[in-house]
Amino acid sequence: MKRIAVMTTGGDAPGMNAAIRSVVRCGCASGVEVMGVFRGWWGLINEELKPFNHRSVSGIINQGGTILKTQRCHEFNTEEGQQRAFNTVKKYDIEGLIVIGGNGSFAAAHRFYQKYGVPCIGIAASIDNDVNGIDMTIGSDTAINTALAAIDNIRDTATSMERVFVVEVMGRGCGYIALSVALAGGCEDVIIPEIKYDISKICHDIVNGNLKGKISWIVVLAEGVAKAADITKQISEITSLECRAVTLGHIQRGGRPTAVSRDLALHLGKAAVDRLLAGETDKAVGFVKGEISAVDFEKAIMKKEFNVGRWYNLIKILS
Amino acid sequence: MKRIAVMTTGGDAPGMNAAIRSVVRCGCASGVEVMGVFRGWWGLINEELKPFNHRSVSGIINQGGTILKTQRCHEFNTEEGQQRAFNTVKKYDIEGLIVIGGNGSFAAAHRFYQKYGVPCIGIAASIDNDVNGIDMTIGSDTAINTALAAIDNIRDTATSMERVFVVEVMGRGCGYIALSVALAGGCEDVIIPEIKYDISKICHDIVNGNLKGKISWIVVLAEGVAKAADITKQISEITSLECRAVTLGHIQRGGRPTAVSRDLALHLGKAAVDRLLAGETDKAVGFVKGEISAVDFEKAIMKKEFNVGRWYNLIKILS
Amino acid sequence: MKRIAVMTTGGDAPGMNAAIRSVVRCGCASGVEVMGVFRGWWGLINEELKPFNHRSVSGIINQGGTILKTQRCHEFNTEEGQQRAFNTVKKYDIEGLIVIGGNGSFAAAHRFYQKYGVPCIGIAASIDNDVNGIDMTIGSDTAINTALAAIDNIRDTATSMERVFVVEVMGRGCGYIALSVALAGGCEDVIIPEIKYDISKICHDIVNGNLKGKISWIVVLAEGVAKAADITKQISEITSLECRAVTLGHIQRGGRPTAVSRDLALHLGKAAVDRLLAGETDKAVGFVKGEISAVDFEKAIMKKEFNVGRWYNLIKILS
Amino acid sequence: MKRIAVMTTGGDAPGMNAAIRSVVRCGCASGVEVMGVFRGWWGLINEELKPFNHRSVSGIINQGGTILKTQRCHEFNTEEGQQRAFNTVKKYDIEGLIVIGGNGSFAAAHRFYQKYGVPCIGIAASIDNDVNGIDMTIGSDTAINTALAAIDNIRDTATSMERVFVVEVMGRGCGYIALSVALAGGCEDVIIPEIKYDISKICHDIVNGNLKGKISWIVVLAEGVAKAADITKQISEITSLECRAVTLGHIQRGGRPTAVSRDLALHLGKAAVDRLLAGETDKAVGFVKGEISAVDFEKAIMKKEFNVGRWYNLIKILS
Repeated sequence: MKRIAVMTTGGDAPGMNAAIRSVVRCGCASGVEVMGVFRGWWGLINEELKPFNHRSVSGIINQGGTILKTQRCHEFNTEEGQQRAFNTVKKYDIEGLIVIGGNGSFAAAHRFYQKYGVPCIGIAASIDNDVNGIDMTIGSDTAINTALAAIDNIRDTATSMERVFVVEVMGRGCGYIALSVALAGGCEDVIIPEIKYDISKICHDIVNGNLKGKISWIVVLAEGVAKAADITKQISEITSLECRAVTLGHIQRGGRPTAVSRDLALHLGKAAVDRLLAGETDKAVGFVKGEISAVDFEKAIMKKEFNVGRWYNLIKILS
Repeated sequence: MKRIAVMTTGGDAPGMNAAIRSVVRCGCASGVEVMGVFRGWWGLINEELKPFNHRSVSGIINQGGTILKTQRCHEFNTEEGQQRAFNTVKKYDIEGLIVIGGNGSFAAAHRFYQKYGVPCIGIAASIDNDVNGIDMTIGSDTAINTALAAIDNIRDTATSMERVFVVEVMGRGCGYIALSVALAGGCEDVIIPEIKYDISKICHDIVNGNLKGKISWIVVLAEGVAKAADITKQISEITSLECRAVTLGHIQRGGRPTAVSRDLALHLGKAAVDRLLAGETDKAVGFVKGEISAVDFEKAIMKKEFNVGRWYNLIKILS
Repeated sequence: MKRIAVMTTGGDAPGMNAAIRSVVRCGCASGVEVMGVFRGWWGLINEELKPFNHRSVSGIINQGGTILKTQRCHEFNTEEGQQRAFNTVKKYDIEGLIVIGGNGSFAAAHRFYQKYGVPCIGIAASIDNDVNGIDMTIGSDTAINTALAAIDNIRDTATSMERVFVVEVMGRGCGYIALSVALAGGCEDVIIPEIKYDISKICHDIVNGNLKGKISWIVVLAEGVAKAADITKQISEITSLECRAVTLGHIQRGGRPTAVSRDLALHLGKAAVDRLLAGETDKAVGFVKGEISAVDFEKAIMKKEFNVGRWYNLIKILS
Repeated sequence: MKRIAVMTTGGDAPGMNAAIRSVVRCGCASGVEVMGVFRGWWGLINEELKPFNHRSVSGIINQGGTILKTQRCHEFNTEEGQQRAFNTVKKYDIEGLIVIGGNGSFAAAHRFYQKYGVPCIGIAASIDNDVNGIDMTIGSDTAINTALAAIDNIRDTATSMERVFVVEVMGRGCGYIALSVALAGGCEDVIIPEIKYDISKICHDIVNGNLKGKISWIVVLAEGVAKAADITKQISEITSLECRAVTLGHIQRGGRPTAVSRDLALHLGKAAVDRLLAGETDKAVGFVKGEISAVDFEKAIMKKEFNVGRWYNLIKILS
């Protein structure tokens, strides 16, 4: 291969810039030219791309977001959009694509490879850690630490004012962020998509704890299961305790990437380039049981399997 | 005086613990006994207090919240509640009170002093920086930095995904937090209680900026003026741009106090003790034009006057 | 078993408190009594211990250091010291020991078990990540992120003033911290115990980079290999460039544990209790390839084997 | 005026970029062209400058360091260097200079104005807060918070391992950083240039504290007074206690500017432009008693006067 392209798609995640840096510099070191595509698939469709070199990616390793920008692109779901994207690939002699993103990005890359035969390697970057078959996505550790700092702050008030808090965190259909921060934050309860929750059980525990002198209570709620405001209202009504809702929202998505998010991004950038140049395609690179590996796109986009029970039970024991 | 008491009331603020530390240790150093009252006025009413010494306040200087806990106490608004509080003061031979809190706390302390003659000195602690007549309340700088870090994170996504964000910050009736973070965050617009806002003007600016290539836009909204969700909806409808709401909420209230919040708390703790022992009462200590001073409770609880225009205009020029 | 004891030994590491919390609460949940021993082996020798319960470990999950305190105890290296420690174990009917610490602690626990037959399970906590056979020690991720934040700061000055910096990080005989922060910090070079360094090669690279317009240069140095001041002096003399030394030192040892350090500590605390109660001994619990497992003390204290080359080569490619 | 220039000189300080942003955008808003000079006086001498516009300063508000770079320039101390700098000023029709820096920068600007009549306004930016006549320099609050976070970390180890630490902070000839962090960090002692220290008194206090059960002790040392290693050695020898030295060094110089450092920079950038355009010269803008004001260069570069005693005594009372 002589020329490859790299892009970021879907929601931004901290560490995407570090991944771009690694792809570009490892590409250069391997003697291939690397083009940066702006705004994901939209940029391929609209010919928004340019050659990147070693210096193009200076000073971005510790910046959140993505210098390549990203969009959710509906046009790529159409026949015409895909064809135009492929036209760009041909026009610029791009022989392989590296797609930094999450499940949606991989599903699109899979379709693109199936239809046009353009080799595609994915790098899993998503704060939700919801990519199946790999240990951890780029950005997830950063988001978890941001949410955890928020929980630590909220704990100060919960303890000082002796209140119940419901804190809604991100994660889409996956409870990973919620479980991690609930455990690390010493939270009393957690509501996740993987396990059915019982509001009367939660309220019973709160009242019981209250009777034993437990003065603060934080319930971590994964987005999608319910709204923080609704859960808060239910708890207030059932327990008659003062209860407050906090929705952390987009603060979880940006910020300086942690060491884990950066190191992951840098190792996987190299792995993606190496595998693409070695002729592999239709899969995402990732760490599996602590070693660099890869998982087929078709498997990666399935519902993530992980040891939910180990986290959940430990939260219950320790609360 | 031989014995004084200290308590925290109203919402917690980072640096309250540092203020407690200073009051207790400066009291001890001045040869008076200091009693810690738990949960503010509620603790006086219910005789929840105990003697504090030099060691009682070890290791709390960098902790958010308040080890004395705090409550909003409705009982103290009744004749009977106040009388019970006074009974406790008499029973324990408390000759003076130091009240760490905000406007509500000072109003209550003022009434208590007027009615029962118990000398009261306030220390202004509130994240909102809404105490009139003093430069800065304890906790305000910490809350501003927490909100600013959130804004920095959101900027990563706003820039990467080219979106409009409306970020709601705390402040009650005062726009100080909103102005500080809007300026320091390089935000494009700010909505505060002190200045009437015009949604069509805001939208016009956004669209105009968009035409000139400005790809991200953050509007900081002070709580109380409107709900972030409502402003977001209006902007979306008028501009047809993707717009997201974030309500920072209680993450702004806790956390490790910054150097400013701690140093302020420590200096004011000493000033409060010194003035109480010197026979002063019915006023709050604070920095005024950079020097330790005091302001009468009656003035402190009035609407805060500050140079709103200087902040507001600069935000407009720099955006 | 009816009663076990837990202690922290060796250097403190962020997450030790979370581990203590988990051991105590999991012990209580399993129906055994847990005694906390103060200052490590010194506390066993001097009978400084007391029963801990669920509430004894409240509010410590996010605190650095260790509430059990820790010491390097020379007396335990003597026959008499060990005998006195064993006397305490007998006197208090302690049927098993959980030792939270690093290699030195495990070597001591191994000898104690060999000699007196007291069941001992270790939990690997050390900022250096130098325990052989397990993925990551408690505290290591926190120390790496602290060092990384320092590197980010130094990069600002290195770039603004166009200077060379040599930054010395911790790690004892192990280059793990140095490699992680050098990679994540985008550092240009790294000196570690595992690979012989060549000062003239380093200087040659710096001068070469300088000719190509590279204006800042950070060399990460693992402690023990050399002193930052000495390396700095050599580089200054050979290259004639302005070069500064920074030794991060003890700032790497404390601070709020990251999510990784806390979650690791909490999972391993439970694993340690479970295994001790199941009759296991003479080994340390840890994650191995992403799963909770255990490694014999004798293996754990050997020189850590890890994929040094993968890190080192990537740093070189990306710089 | 139609064209002015801005530069950063001396050591970099967090918030310099925010000041540049404010100068450039306020200049544009006032209808003057702003040129950015690179590497301070060196850039004037060597004609390294270019026009800046509104977009040139996007995305830098929260970045440490300075995009204009900075150098300590010896050539400007020569007759020839100054003449070349003036030639550049003439050649590019620069009618006024804004110099962002500290005392050394102001002394140079003063000489330049005296000799060539080029109007110069300074903006005080220096982590040391050593500019006389103004409340606070840009960058100082950030440096203090960075040092304070380091002290908080060190406290964890000092408490857990019951040790004495000597922590050396920056500040050049001024004890402001040392006093602020010693107070805010709850440190037991502080050594500053403004007050003669007595090592035997310090050791006496440590031993005394130790006898009363005080288990950790942190002495903050301002650079320049002595070396941390030397003080540490003296304390170890006199008290026979384990004592460790930490020199924070360049980590204090970089990093994301705090809200105070940013807001200060943004307000002062505007004030500098306004005053320069109003015909003022030979002075530095700054906050004086909480209001925007200015101080003559000749006064600004004198030894800073501030209320040393208030800080120092409070540290002693609270320790």
